[in-house]
Amino acid sequence: MINKVNREIPDEFLINGREVFQGAYYRKNYEYTKASPTVKSDVQPRDSKLVASLREAIEKCGLKDGMTVSFHHHFRNGDYVCSLVFDVIHEMGIKDINLVASSLGKAQASIVPYIEDGTITRISSSGVRDEIGNAISAGKLKHPAWIRTHGGRCRAIETGDEHIDVAFIGAPTSDDYGNASGKGGKSDCGVLSYAEVDAKYADKVVVVTDTLVAYPNHPYGIKGIDVDYVVVVDQVGDARKIAGNAIRMTSDPRELMIAEYATKCVVNTPWFRDGFSFQTGAGGSSLAVTQFLKPHMDEKNIKMGFALGGITKQMVDLLKEGYIRKIADTQDFDIPAVESVNTTPGHFEISTSEYANPMNKGAYVNKLDYVILGALEVDVDYNVNVVVGSDGMIQGAPGGHVDTAAGSKVCIIVTPLIRGRLATVRSNVTSVTTPGESVDIVVTDYGVAINPLRQDLMDCLSKTDLPLVTIEELRDIAYSIVGEPNDIEFEEKVVALVEYRDGTLIDVIRQPKNI
Amino acid sequence: MINKVNREIPDEFLINGREVFQGAYYRKNYEYTKASPTVKSDVQPRDSKLVASLREAIEKCGLKDGMTVSFHHHFRNGDYVCSLVFDVIHEMGIKDINLVASSLGKAQASIVPYIEDGTITRISSSGVRDEIGNAISAGKLKHPAWIRTHGGRCRAIETGDEHIDVAFIGAPTSDDYGNASGKGGKSDCGVLSYAEVDAKYADKVVVVTDTLVAYPNHPYGIKGIDVDYVVVVDQVGDARKIAGNAIRMTSDPRELMIAEYATKCVVNTPWFRDGFSFQTGAGGSSLAVTQFLKPHMDEKNIKMGFALGGITKQMVDLLKEGYIRKIADTQDFDIPAVESVNTTPGHFEISTSEYANPMNKGAYVNKLDYVILGALEVDVDYNVNVVVGSDGMIQGAPGGHVDTAAGSKVCIIVTPLIRGRLATVRSNVTSVTTPGESVDIVVTDYGVAINPLRQDLMDCLSKTDLPLVTIEELRDIAYSIVGEPNDIEFEEKVVALVEYRDGTLIDVIRQPKNI
Repeated sequence: MINKVNREIPDEFLINGREVFQGAYYRKNYEYTKASPTVKSDVQPRDSKLVASLREAIEKCGLKDGMTVSFHHHFRNGDYVCSLVFDVIHEMGIKDINLVASSLGKAQASIVPYIEDGTITRISSSGVRDEIGNAISAGKLKHPAWIRTHGGRCRAIETGDEHIDVAFIGAPTSDDYGNASGKGGKSDCGVLSYAEVDAKYADKVVVVTDTLVAYPNHPYGIKGIDVDYVVVVDQVGDARKIAGNAIRMTSDPRELMIAEYATKCVVNTPWFRDGFSFQTGAGGSSLAVTQFLKPHMDEKNIKMGFALGGITKQMVDLLKEGYIRKIADTQDFDIPAVESVNTTPGHFEISTSEYANPMNKGAYVNKLDYVILGALEVDVDYNVNVVVGSDGMIQGAPGGHVDTAAGSKVCIIVTPLIRGRLATVRSNVTSVTTPGESVDIVVTDYGVAINPLRQDLMDCLSKTDLPLVTIEELRDIAYSIVGEPNDIEFEEKVVALVEYRDGTLIDVIRQPKNI
Repeated sequence: MINKVNREIPDEFLINGREVFQGAYYRKNYEYTKASPTVKSDVQPRDSKLVASLREAIEKCGLKDGMTVSFHHHFRNGDYVCSLVFDVIHEMGIKDINLVASSLGKAQASIVPYIEDGTITRISSSGVRDEIGNAISAGKLKHPAWIRTHGGRCRAIETGDEHIDVAFIGAPTSDDYGNASGKGGKSDCGVLSYAEVDAKYADKVVVVTDTLVAYPNHPYGIKGIDVDYVVVVDQVGDARKIAGNAIRMTSDPRELMIAEYATKCVVNTPWFRDGFSFQTGAGGSSLAVTQFLKPHMDEKNIKMGFALGGITKQMVDLLKEGYIRKIADTQDFDIPAVESVNTTPGHFEISTSEYANPMNKGAYVNKLDYVILGALEVDVDYNVNVVVGSDGMIQGAPGGHVDTAAGSKVCIIVTPLIRGRLATVRSNVTSVTTPGESVDIVVTDYGVAINPLRQDLMDCLSKTDLPLVTIEELRDIAYSIVGEPNDIEFEEKVVALVEYRDGTLIDVIRQPKNI
């Protein structure tokens, strides 16, 4: 069946009530009974939750063939937990595991052999990058992978689409009852936002830490009342790869130009007023926009009400300088952000369900005025691809892209028009991640295109000196420089399903030929 | 059927799997699937949750005859919210409502006519004091009231024994998305611990506030993602009756003597060491114990790991002076406590489920070394009554009494032996609230009795100069002074069921004759 963004979704995937994507707000007011875990009460006050090893925890949880386990990715490229756990699962000979991760990347490369040998046969994740992305693209996973947005993952778990049998939650610090925090210890990651939904909805919850602290640990994102077992390991991650030094401001003139255009889009639209809200990624242009807003805020004598999402030093500095009133944090990209969260007044942790789940009673993204996002490709209908490379290989992640685009009043895509001799703006994208209806402005180094659905933005921005163009003009410029892209050839085999945040299917990804 | 504390539970109440009390840890390892609410998703970012009136909120929630509504009691004697809501429910002609409150008292006296006219036909609460206690004792409520501990209420809601259709959560401050806090505004109550389970498990959640603040309100105990509607009213409570000035140290020599004995019990048992944990009520002797511990902590050069439960200035001062490392707060009894929570480092809010629910994966009470509690009556089996007066009228509340007694390593009851010409220690209690098996020491002004189940405590305390006596000796002294109490005569009619924290029935309360 063809969906609303003109992608063909094979009928074989439209089972058990699964529908094709029918618009960003199609499932508004959907009523459902929330999922819930099956738990064992702990009336006895003297019991200990500490177990001697991951193996003991896995045995006590009763993990069996075919079950679902989950992980978060706050340790980013430094995560050891997922690999450690799967080494034990493999050693125990357990097969056919469904791996529900908030994201997967280089840090989990060691599980590729377990995909190949049938230890892992299903995967749900936001990112499926690097070696794991290659393995999935190559058709090595038995069942198609589910690619979910950060909000969509919470939705899938809370609605019961995805039931977790055992959640493994790596934590920089925990007490012996499992009150676990992203702060402290030797593997500081700041927050545990992604894991909160796992703790609340998994039947069994195991906290894995390398730093046991006195009871009660505080502040804690994961509550001990949801935790069955606590395992102390030598090291949950490689601190150097978890959060690095602050990313420096870009000096690339092309990125700075894009940032300047994007800044003009923000400051010349009506939501740029006292109390406005803002999210941006950690890319060069995005970080520069954050900096560029400062003089405009001074000029209008306004402050940002709240900043949202993944946080960097730039945002923390603005908070400390009084330009921002609150930071609602779901992920920390550098050490200054890790150190600030839950310590600097106004900088606090929220769960990912609070951040972006489209099926709770109103997530933070709904309150977002502006979001600045990147793109691998944009098509002339403003559909954005951030998951599949122009070579057909899975290499990215929807993350919060889809969620913030749908929630925000103004979604601005910043991207160079040409990247690595390939056109970013094109007639068709290799895969649709974010539907064009929730993408408002595309800012490139060759001009700024405004989605015709947003005549209100056109009215505001046509009064500025921004180089406004149509999206088709951007495509034509790109094609005139690097030529029209060749169609990639794909096998029939579907290797991944791209789920829209509301649970409908926005795309499927097939195995590229000749890889 | 006769239960483990020798109380007769009529068979008519032993239906739908309800059992009689069979010991404090009878339901250890009980496995169950958690309850969950039926919710409507809010995909659309522009929707507002603000409604113009309580009536509009109630209409939008679809409240109907026979449904269940809930309230918290953080506004204590100053609460307006419960009365305001019931005035509207009554005006709308809705009947047969089940009122699930965390506690009820003087502030809700205006609902008594709604009990009489059938607007309210079922009640579940911890406290049923004052006018409401009188109405229930007089048999005016159609069905027997359920008297629940603080932890037991959370258990009943989380297991699905009690399903809430609409939760009304009074909040000192809230933003327009329902992120609601116990802090700020004109009706400051500190925390919203009791209401968290309501927000998470009720189908519809209405936040009622008198102080709307900018989004996002922070810190917040109630999450906007669980809230459907926000109503702004003139006043949620009478600030003067919510939290008063700090309670002064007692100068009553009898209370001071009891406190001195209790302090000796604490400091001469092995858990009085660095990192020990402690809870006490706000009564004169209890507060004095907190003060009396200081020199002993100095002498041993130890600190308290955490203080728990309802908090007063005494505890806050100890935290600020460095005697306590953490305070896990579920209720604030005075303005200094209200001001300190979530502001003084180490003083933080926890939910009541975290505090005391026996059927999550391990509540704070399980980690408690010492708890100092009061009593209306104690029998020679150490069973304690804190609910029914010696005149047979319901006048108290189990609160956290039962939960902390079961969780703590040492549960110390402090009470004068004679109160108002009645013996506190007696052959039989008028009603059993806390089973004797979880009561370890009874401290009176005429001596200290140690439960024979705790030979370990006897071994420690027999080395001190404490006036150790048997519980029978205490009773005999009391009877020799004020005489043996007369049996109260009761009608057959059961007016209330006393639920043990695990959901079994520990007692029933009958209507006293001639009231």
